[in-house]
Amino acid sequence: MSAAADSGATVTAAVLIIGNEILSGRTQDVNLNYLAKRMAALGIKLCEARVVADIPEEIIGAVNGLRARYNYVFTTGGIGPTHDDITSECIARAFGVPLIRHPEALKILERHYEPGMLNEARLRMANTPDGAVLIENPVSAAPGYRIGNVYVMAGVPKIMQSMFEGIAPTLSHGAPIQSRTVGAHIGEGVIAKGLGELQAAYPDLDIGSYPFFRRQRYGASFVIKGTDRSRIDAAAGRLHELIRSLGAEPVDGELPE
Amino acid sequence: MSAAADSGATVTAAVLIIGNEILSGRTQDVNLNYLAKRMAALGIKLCEARVVADIPEEIIGAVNGLRARYNYVFTTGGIGPTHDDITSECIARAFGVPLIRHPEALKILERHYEPGMLNEARLRMANTPDGAVLIENPVSAAPGYRIGNVYVMAGVPKIMQSMFEGIAPTLSHGAPIQSRTVGAHIGEGVIAKGLGELQAAYPDLDIGSYPFFRRQRYGASFVIKGTDRSRIDAAAGRLHELIRSLGAEPVDGELPE
Repeated sequence: MSAAADSGATVTAAVLIIGNEILSGRTQDVNLNYLAKRMAALGIKLCEARVVADIPEEIIGAVNGLRARYNYVFTTGGIGPTHDDITSECIARAFGVPLIRHPEALKILERHYEPGMLNEARLRMANTPDGAVLIENPVSAAPGYRIGNVYVMAGVPKIMQSMFEGIAPTLSHGAPIQSRTVGAHIGEGVIAKGLGELQAAYPDLDIGSYPFFRRQRYGASFVIKGTDRSRIDAAAGRLHELIRSLGAEPVDGELPE
Repeated sequence: MSAAADSGATVTAAVLIIGNEILSGRTQDVNLNYLAKRMAALGIKLCEARVVADIPEEIIGAVNGLRARYNYVFTTGGIGPTHDDITSECIARAFGVPLIRHPEALKILERHYEPGMLNEARLRMANTPDGAVLIENPVSAAPGYRIGNVYVMAGVPKIMQSMFEGIAPTLSHGAPIQSRTVGAHIGEGVIAKGLGELQAAYPDLDIGSYPFFRRQRYGASFVIKGTDRSRIDAAAGRLHELIRSLGAEPVDGELPE
């Protein structure tokens, strides 16, 4: 399944977070960070994320915009049994296919619920766009699914994570992204010129600068990312020299909080 | 400044988070949640959020798409002194205006830095699109700015928050969104039908259902939002009755973690 890794091609992805609760501030999203970390480790380039409200036109527009643009789209949220769970209807409309009661999903729910407990609302969780392939839900049974290049997952973090880990081995990917972090008690503005020159000397790497204020001291973490470990190490070596030349002491990794 | 509140019109907004560190998983974003909560309290409807990488075309495209669509756009990130801080160049290109050295911003930086410390990299933080109005930065001096309906803020949460609180009193807004939360140890699937009927009976309110698994028990929080307190309270009363009719006990607020 990892043909892309062999060819060295970049595999791209977007995350689409569906849910009023994120936009109202009720809920602090943690799914994006989880997915971002996992994709970096797998070698999938997360290019964009969007948060949209529970409004059909918004969901449909975002799904169609993103699936045309990236290799993969991962959605979270809106596949439960209540009236505000409208993701599946919207995904079906986005793909222009009917919403069906998926036979396998129905069997899963029938096995999961006690007799008499599988009511109309819960049966909605067996509805998928026609042509969907189920994604297992080891936590609470009701499955997610894939249709085309769109993976539809739950919004509850534990469930979303279990779904993603189930599909992760099946995803195409490029070379995993590796990174090295160097910290120093140095002003970003002091090192900016040299850091820009270092970035220019290593165009195949991505060098980020993240300022902080910890334990009453200013400093910054510099993160070097790429797919070639030896290039990363070479750039890190030059970064150490640069920091020392400016009178500060480089530390491998993050400075303590 | 709050003409919109008087007329009862809805004031809309989007948040644009600029930064590779969110998409790589290095950083857990907390700015969206802060802004979402504050906008709800102020009476500004946050309709959408996007996270884009440090790539000019991505930033420019998102800024132009969002500013045409919403009353306000709030951006976070990318206005520091290092090579990966490219927000201001991109905002200028999005508006089709030159990037200038803002005279007031320059004065602020000159006052802030010790003599000899205001180097070329730091001077970049005085660059804004032509026509920008500065936003004060009480934490670390280098200002944000507004151009048109786009507010450009820092990515470091403490700085972003201090900038937003400075501009908050100047923003137009509608009626603040009020909400009431009712929790119960009840399956979402058990209450879904009645909850859908309650939502249909109160189309002016937004009733959300958020399942949880805490202290080894399943349950859900139901959040009723709207601008009219008496309608919210009436719906909450009916929700209490609904929960009791299904054999569970409603609790005002979130059930304990």
